[in-house]
Amino acid sequence: MTGPDATGPDATGPDATGPEGVAPARGLVVLPVVGIGEIGRGADLAGLVAAHAELAGGDVVVVTQKAVSKAEGRIVEVEEDDPAARRRLIEKESVRVLRRRGELLITETRHGFVCANAGVDFSNVDAGRAALLPEDPDRSARRLRDGLRARTGLDLGVVVSDTFGRPWRRGVTDVAIGCAGIAAVVDLRGTADANGRTLQATEVCVADEIAAAAELVMGKAAGVPAAIVRGVDPGWLRRSSVAAEIVRPAGEDLFR
Amino acid sequence: MTGPDATGPDATGPDATGPEGVAPARGLVVLPVVGIGEIGRGADLAGLVAAHAELAGGDVVVVTQKAVSKAEGRIVEVEEDDPAARRRLIEKESVRVLRRRGELLITETRHGFVCANAGVDFSNVDAGRAALLPEDPDRSARRLRDGLRARTGLDLGVVVSDTFGRPWRRGVTDVAIGCAGIAAVVDLRGTADANGRTLQATEVCVADEIAAAAELVMGKAAGVPAAIVRGVDPGWLRRSSVAAEIVRPAGEDLFR
Repeated sequence: MTGPDATGPDATGPDATGPEGVAPARGLVVLPVVGIGEIGRGADLAGLVAAHAELAGGDVVVVTQKAVSKAEGRIVEVEEDDPAARRRLIEKESVRVLRRRGELLITETRHGFVCANAGVDFSNVDAGRAALLPEDPDRSARRLRDGLRARTGLDLGVVVSDTFGRPWRRGVTDVAIGCAGIAAVVDLRGTADANGRTLQATEVCVADEIAAAAELVMGKAAGVPAAIVRGVDPGWLRRSSVAAEIVRPAGEDLFR
Repeated sequence: MTGPDATGPDATGPDATGPEGVAPARGLVVLPVVGIGEIGRGADLAGLVAAHAELAGGDVVVVTQKAVSKAEGRIVEVEEDDPAARRRLIEKESVRVLRRRGELLITETRHGFVCANAGVDFSNVDAGRAALLPEDPDRSARRLRDGLRARTGLDLGVVVSDTFGRPWRRGVTDVAIGCAGIAAVVDLRGTADANGRTLQATEVCVADEIAAAAELVMGKAAGVPAAIVRGVDPGWLRRSSVAAEIVRPAGEDLFR
């Protein structure tokens, strides 16, 4: 964050960006965490990640929603081939239905996420079961971060990721539904650009970009529930939450 | 892509995913391309990238829209402090206005992108000027790919990235507005998941995820117009375009 006196082109040179505004000169490394295997209810996610990854301080650990939901026992039974039962389950997980087309519902969850089918996932769980979103994915991320620190002594960031569609663009991408110890949105508002002018669109959702980068090594079908993103700007490692920083209040939103 | 006979749980084991469905076992590396400096009209982007990066076959080169627009001379003059002039310019670049709030317009460009201010960028260009989107960002990507191949002999992927906002979620992220030699959307539809069941939401927009990963090392204010993403699944290196694979036709869209 920069102070109000650092926003004018005269007050700052092109190098005078705030602590969150400095891109890392070095690169990033994104590593899949392989070998974890099937995750059951009550699984010790922190222990599993710590056992299967060589972590370093400042790493961001990205864990999929499905891994978290399985460990937290957020698995429910549902008649797989009964569209009405699936719809009831989705509606139960929603506070509002935005759009409906055939079996696809776009709804708002109680967390404030707008996504397909309230985030209820019928794939990669046993037949006749579905995975619900974690009750509080930011809390899930904090617990995992605390567990990893207890085991490794390292300060890490944690992102819980999920796969969402988007309007206007085909294909799904991974986004952050929970985070801890890593900024969700990095505020470059008022930071001078390379020409000394004030930037316009300047709040970057780095947590979503980290989730997207992780997805590139996790794949959809490979059974890799976690990845490490190494080399993020150390200035981004701070207290945060998806609920506070990413979820857009309805009053701010032009499409709800 | 998998053939129709590979979609049933009996036809395929959990390892029998299609060529696009296999996540890379190794990790990714994301490297900023530093030292390029200011880009002027007519700049030889391929030469600049080749001179400032140690490229390897299969790398994906991500270049920002602004670098491409500057090189292609897509810079126009606009009275900076005249909101009406800015609005006229944005409307000229749009085929449809979806939402309007104060000075912010969410419009559809002639490319089919839905974004703020038709992608017209008033930051990181000289005062009194604005950068328009490339006329055909897929063509820009193809030209850059051809130029890089001519200089290096390497087969590479190229993504032209831009920074878009999203409904429902705060903060901007980088997405692909053009690509060449790298899949835009990887089709895992019908690929068996790790439990042998058919996946549901399975078309992953890897081009957007690659753009997002690149943004993490480029930053908004650091004057780094390109990044290298190394280690993507070789099966993703193929002919593609954002226009054909990512832009969602209005008839498919629930939010237009």
